[in-house]
Amino acid sequence: MYIIIVGGGDLGFYLAQILLDEEHDVIIIDKDEKICEKISGELDLVVQKGDATETKTLEKAGIKEANALVALTGQDETNMVISLLAKELGAENVATRIGKIDYDEMVLKKLGIDIVIHPEAAAAGYISELITKPEVLDLAFISRGQAEIMELEITEKSKIVGKKIKEIEHPSGSAIVALYENDNLIIPDKETEINVGSKILILAKRDIAEKVRKSII
Amino acid sequence: MYIIIVGGGDLGFYLAQILLDEEHDVIIIDKDEKICEKISGELDLVVQKGDATETKTLEKAGIKEANALVALTGQDETNMVISLLAKELGAENVATRIGKIDYDEMVLKKLGIDIVIHPEAAAAGYISELITKPEVLDLAFISRGQAEIMELEITEKSKIVGKKIKEIEHPSGSAIVALYENDNLIIPDKETEINVGSKILILAKRDIAEKVRKSII
Amino acid sequence: MYIIIVGGGDLGFYLAQILLDEEHDVIIIDKDEKICEKISGELDLVVQKGDATETKTLEKAGIKEANALVALTGQDETNMVISLLAKELGAENVATRIGKIDYDEMVLKKLGIDIVIHPEAAAAGYISELITKPEVLDLAFISRGQAEIMELEITEKSKIVGKKIKEIEHPSGSAIVALYENDNLIIPDKETEINVGSKILILAKRDIAEKVRKSII
Amino acid sequence: MYIIIVGGGDLGFYLAQILLDEEHDVIIIDKDEKICEKISGELDLVVQKGDATETKTLEKAGIKEANALVALTGQDETNMVISLLAKELGAENVATRIGKIDYDEMVLKKLGIDIVIHPEAAAAGYISELITKPEVLDLAFISRGQAEIMELEITEKSKIVGKKIKEIEHPSGSAIVALYENDNLIIPDKETEINVGSKILILAKRDIAEKVRKSII
Amino acid sequence: MYIIIVGGGDLGFYLAQILLDEEHDVIIIDKDEKICEKISGELDLVVQKGDATETKTLEKAGIKEANALVALTGQDETNMVISLLAKELGAENVATRIGKIDYDEMVLKKLGIDIVIHPEAAAAGYISELITKPEVLDLAFISRGQAEIMELEITEKSKIVGKKIKEIEHPSGSAIVALYENDNLIIPDKETEINVGSKILILAKRDIAEKVRKSII
Amino acid sequence: MYIIIVGGGDLGFYLAQILLDEEHDVIIIDKDEKICEKISGELDLVVQKGDATETKTLEKAGIKEANALVALTGQDETNMVISLLAKELGAENVATRIGKIDYDEMVLKKLGIDIVIHPEAAAAGYISELITKPEVLDLAFISRGQAEIMELEITEKSKIVGKKIKEIEHPSGSAIVALYENDNLIIPDKETEINVGSKILILAKRDIAEKVRKSII
Amino acid sequence: MYIIIVGGGDLGFYLAQILLDEEHDVIIIDKDEKICEKISGELDLVVQKGDATETKTLEKAGIKEANALVALTGQDETNMVISLLAKELGAENVATRIGKIDYDEMVLKKLGIDIVIHPEAAAAGYISELITKPEVLDLAFISRGQAEIMELEITEKSKIVGKKIKEIEHPSGSAIVALYENDNLIIPDKETEINVGSKILILAKRDIAEKVRKSII
Amino acid sequence: MYIIIVGGGDLGFYLAQILLDEEHDVIIIDKDEKICEKISGELDLVVQKGDATETKTLEKAGIKEANALVALTGQDETNMVISLLAKELGAENVATRIGKIDYDEMVLKKLGIDIVIHPEAAAAGYISELITKPEVLDLAFISRGQAEIMELEITEKSKIVGKKIKEIEHPSGSAIVALYENDNLIIPDKETEINVGSKILILAKRDIAEKVRKSII
Repeated sequence: MYIIIVGGGDLGFYLAQILLDEEHDVIIIDKDEKICEKISGELDLVVQKGDATETKTLEKAGIKEANALVALTGQDETNMVISLLAKELGAENVATRIGKIDYDEMVLKKLGIDIVIHPEAAAAGYISELITKPEVLDLAFISRGQAEIMELEITEKSKIVGKKIKEIEHPSGSAIVALYENDNLIIPDKETEINVGSKILILAKRDIAEKVRKSII
Repeated sequence: MYIIIVGGGDLGFYLAQILLDEEHDVIIIDKDEKICEKISGELDLVVQKGDATETKTLEKAGIKEANALVALTGQDETNMVISLLAKELGAENVATRIGKIDYDEMVLKKLGIDIVIHPEAAAAGYISELITKPEVLDLAFISRGQAEIMELEITEKSKIVGKKIKEIEHPSGSAIVALYENDNLIIPDKETEINVGSKILILAKRDIAEKVRKSII
Repeated sequence: MYIIIVGGGDLGFYLAQILLDEEHDVIIIDKDEKICEKISGELDLVVQKGDATETKTLEKAGIKEANALVALTGQDETNMVISLLAKELGAENVATRIGKIDYDEMVLKKLGIDIVIHPEAAAAGYISELITKPEVLDLAFISRGQAEIMELEITEKSKIVGKKIKEIEHPSGSAIVALYENDNLIIPDKETEINVGSKILILAKRDIAEKVRKSII
Repeated sequence: MYIIIVGGGDLGFYLAQILLDEEHDVIIIDKDEKICEKISGELDLVVQKGDATETKTLEKAGIKEANALVALTGQDETNMVISLLAKELGAENVATRIGKIDYDEMVLKKLGIDIVIHPEAAAAGYISELITKPEVLDLAFISRGQAEIMELEITEKSKIVGKKIKEIEHPSGSAIVALYENDNLIIPDKETEINVGSKILILAKRDIAEKVRKSII
Repeated sequence: MYIIIVGGGDLGFYLAQILLDEEHDVIIIDKDEKICEKISGELDLVVQKGDATETKTLEKAGIKEANALVALTGQDETNMVISLLAKELGAENVATRIGKIDYDEMVLKKLGIDIVIHPEAAAAGYISELITKPEVLDLAFISRGQAEIMELEITEKSKIVGKKIKEIEHPSGSAIVALYENDNLIIPDKETEINVGSKILILAKRDIAEKVRKSII
Repeated sequence: MYIIIVGGGDLGFYLAQILLDEEHDVIIIDKDEKICEKISGELDLVVQKGDATETKTLEKAGIKEANALVALTGQDETNMVISLLAKELGAENVATRIGKIDYDEMVLKKLGIDIVIHPEAAAAGYISELITKPEVLDLAFISRGQAEIMELEITEKSKIVGKKIKEIEHPSGSAIVALYENDNLIIPDKETEINVGSKILILAKRDIAEKVRKSII
Repeated sequence: MYIIIVGGGDLGFYLAQILLDEEHDVIIIDKDEKICEKISGELDLVVQKGDATETKTLEKAGIKEANALVALTGQDETNMVISLLAKELGAENVATRIGKIDYDEMVLKKLGIDIVIHPEAAAAGYISELITKPEVLDLAFISRGQAEIMELEITEKSKIVGKKIKEIEHPSGSAIVALYENDNLIIPDKETEINVGSKILILAKRDIAEKVRKSII
Repeated sequence: MYIIIVGGGDLGFYLAQILLDEEHDVIIIDKDEKICEKISGELDLVVQKGDATETKTLEKAGIKEANALVALTGQDETNMVISLLAKELGAENVATRIGKIDYDEMVLKKLGIDIVIHPEAAAAGYISELITKPEVLDLAFISRGQAEIMELEITEKSKIVGKKIKEIEHPSGSAIVALYENDNLIIPDKETEINVGSKILILAKRDIAEKVRKSII
């Protein structure tokens, strides 16, 4: 794929690194000469110094051929206008970093942004769960935040120790979808028994996640 | 719970907001008077102006009673030292923002950091997947990055259209763990049939995720 | 009318002054406290300190009741996003300052901007004409730049001195639409004679303006 | 013509661009090396780094041969002194940007400034009219602000629909000087009829413009 | 007298101090609030915060009644425009600090500046003489730099030791105008004798000063 | 002579220019590379980038051979320390700019400063006289400020019009030491008559200068 | 004692703290209002905002009664001039921080500085010894750097293990002046035996310190 | 030895200078290009531009082979993290500058810091003693601050003048360990007599130092 990244800060840098590892073609556009130099010295890709709110800059970067443009400058409004401009110029797929979490949904839609990225807001949700529920080993949100997958450790006190999957009662809209036994990922069937020391992955709709978690621990 | 947040930037602000919504007690410490004033004006919590690398600041904030301290200043080293100091002063649980992704693991462990947060690195991985694999509707990483859960849309071209779960061959270490039919979350059993228009959630170990995805689309 | 001005710089200030003189209700929004204070001290209107890219700021300013919003901050992208947000929130009429003259037309349309203002570009065109054509006393552009109205002084050398309007040949798409004689504005008819010392106003389509001017001087 | 522009900001840049398109000789003087480099890279003209308040700088730029000097630095006083110096050194024609609208007229005259440019003040007047009178499609000021030309759309409600020019009563000092029918510019005679959908251009002295406008809509 | 000083830096401050000591009425205008506060705290006079390039500021300061205005801001052009404005508004006497020594004379005259002050250039001339001619005890320039008065010490080696005034030959356009004997100022007559240890004051036209000095030492 | 100037600001620049014109050898030392480059480009002398508070810098500049060092940096204390260091290293003659007029005399003497320069204070005294005594055409201070020489214009109202020098009574410690008639400098004798239109130079001890002036006008 | 500290940075702050603990009277002078406020809030002493290079500031602080003044601003030259001024005004004892280690000795003496403090240079010497000679447990310099006292641990490999003081040969100008046995400080006599595990303190002239150290380890 | 210094400020510079003089191999790491250039120009060692909180920077500098790393950046937290990282990467000996004197001891120990350097705190203690006890000529702290060595001058008023060492009573935990007679260092024995004009070095435990001093003077 051919991907244009606008903004060579930490996020742009890491993204470029990952995409290069997967052998995509990547170009980074940044206004700041120092940032351009730094990236050129560390990554093996094309760096274009320029202002991506200008049509000519995006055209020079090959926006018409790009499979995606990712707007990651430090300013929401600039990212939004770049996204709109990129869409008008033919970019297939536009991902945009937005710092403010309460931007009007309709505004973002109208700008033609395909993927909205909220690094701070995402991190905030993640931290909040992990620090307030220590028995949760890890968690992730899926389906645009509608569902949640939690990893829990089964201790001797767990309500479901020794039970088989079919014997466990849990609210509809949730399920134990996997287990780790000695770090092996196992997809359980009805007869699988839950043992002390296993880690289980539970999928649950977001609004019942809390209830599900309590039914198990 | 009683939670101390150090650093009142965007991330600290959003985290405080979420924790307050869940009725935890939160205190924010920041060195900058303007940030303190801004937060005091917008959130209903205690804001303490001070330097959290000083013992007396953390003690005044009640570190001994705190269930968790979250270090979110803009500087990695400051966050790391605050974390170590907080641990020494008795904080149960310490979560720390680290910008650089290649910090020596042993260093972080030695500092007593329980949860490491990489907002930029996390966002970079997420964006990378979504823009290069447009058929993936959403995705999340779980088990500290060892496994991945993908949401895919079933189109007429999908290799598994019309098949029952039991008929689908997929690599071990992976499973279709849920379906959305008309936005209802369904935990499939062996007889469940995969229809056009459904969205499926697939769990897979990270190293085979790509193979799994291709076996389905 | 009720008009919201975003940005309290020179342009916003002068606009507010004119609108107040015509007895409209005006509110100015600016992020900078010093600018807010300065305006409050000099103009008799409501000044709101805030960030107009946030829905709540515009709502607090009464965007739903506003007849117009004028975005005049120093940054094009911010003006553009404010404009889009204002349109979505119900502003009837949106005028926006854009510094760059080559912004994609479709982008501006998509943002719902009703009136685009280019102070620098407008001034550049105006200066260019006046300094390179000293016989032009003043000029203005009308019909979104498609036509031009020039004021010329009739000297003894003018090709049309002593002629009646009906005797003057000039390219189609142009006309002498008015005269000043001793500062009195006169709308000529076919018999009006052009005398030395008069100033004439000529309307011409932009593309023939130069030809028209030369046919007269 | 040979034209010296002092100040390479947005306004100076656009002006140079227009003048070059019309094949004038242009030189830009700016104190800032970065601005000089940027312009050299984008426009095909001579750029001179220097301080235009110094005689030697203007002489080196060829002030004696220049047909005009345009002072466009960001500071009123600097522009004013450059203008005076340029006049003393023999510049034929001097145009000067002045931000403050209330500079003493006699001061400006004494400095020998031929053309005073107020981009912000001009834009403010323009915006004010367009947003408060939505039926005005465009407007311009002519004769140093003494007269105004408005473009209005004729709707079914217009008071003059179906009337011939000779039947329309309007205050003296005003006239319908042109019409657009399907984008064709027509100079009306007494028998021309005003139809729905046409756009008319009305010339009016500034002090009766409002009255004229109301007599038509 | 009533004197307006614009600019409250070191020079403005010292000037105000001297004028107050001589019981003149003094007002200082400065744009910077901190400078205004500092002066208010240290001198017993009126301090007005404002921009002296604006008519209203000067009028508020009482320019019409002022016997003199002294423009001492740090920027030549600002001083020049203030001077012109002050003259137009009726200031009797205008003194202006100019840093650049090669400003076109006609420009300064046209601005109506009565007294031009070059502190740096004046100091440079003074230092130059004193350090290169150690026998010169002090010197001063008079008549707008056309003449010079030097103080010299008479040593045993002086060519004029023991001579009477009438016996001393010196170029026309010069004269020994005074002597100090034991710090008493004496106006010599023809018979006065020059003794070792006396200090003499010699007046000389600038262009022969060097020759005169050498004829004596 | 060989002269070291420390500090390449306006004052240092003008001083170097004068000294070069008189064919002295001059070196300028400045810490700022940009200033060094600017001076190198405009004056024909040696410029040394360095910190003149360091022994090695002054030695490299040839302090041992220098006839004089002039300390003109923008900071009083730095100038003072450079002066002391220069004296210790053998500089014959040290001239030093001091901004604050109330520095303890003994401190300056102890530092070995030969000539103290107060450009701002000097200018303040000069301006004060000229603006408050408009009949004084020019004036200068001599003998370290103990005496004053004034240039006055003789008008019809002057008390001494038509008188001969011998007839004029004026306080002891003062004398009319020269006249300008049609710009010719004349040293008067007892019979010289004072005519309207002449300009006279009066020397007076500082403390009686005011009295003398009044006895004449 | 009554002690004036000029400069409220880290060093000034710690010094004040120590002096207050020993119940001296301390005043801190600093130019910066923020620093003054911070110190006032944390220490119980008089803080005077002012410029200590001015006579009046030091007099207001009571320089005539002060037993000592310590100049600790961040700039060497300012410290030096304050020191000279303080001495002239009667300060008994003046201590001054100097960053540059190679300031001309005679210059410092001439300024009347009693105690010169080089925190960075002192720290550099200390670090250098400790890191390059790991067997040295601690060390200090005494007699203005002429002598050194080292603390060494006696291991089984030490050349002097089991010897009595009188049996140990070491260069003249050195001596084992004390021992720690189990943290008890013991002054040895000739019969004292050196045992493994003891720590010895050796005094040595600076130039033989290295030789002495090697004769023991 | 091979020593890595992080931070090229004054302290780092002086340390490098001393170590080079003793013929150690030294490398300086600094993030700032200007500082790197300055040091390269003045010292003969390797300068590496880089961020020492990154593993790769320290590895490139040869941390595995280094005998010591000294962290001297201006920020405590950065120094602390570099120290921890260096220890993890195998540095034998780590010395670290810490500005705040009240850092939790356990925190510093946990970071593996071998030598803690407090230049400001050290200087503060030193100044405090010297200015409050003028009879102390010099003093130093040894054994990590547990003991103190003072140099005192023996005057006629001293309580121990004329006494032999064995006759002097002083608290246990203290001893006169050396004398200077005419600048010769003498290790006294019991019969040594204390004469006027000698300087004595007294070693004392810190807590009795004051008492010891008073017993002698």
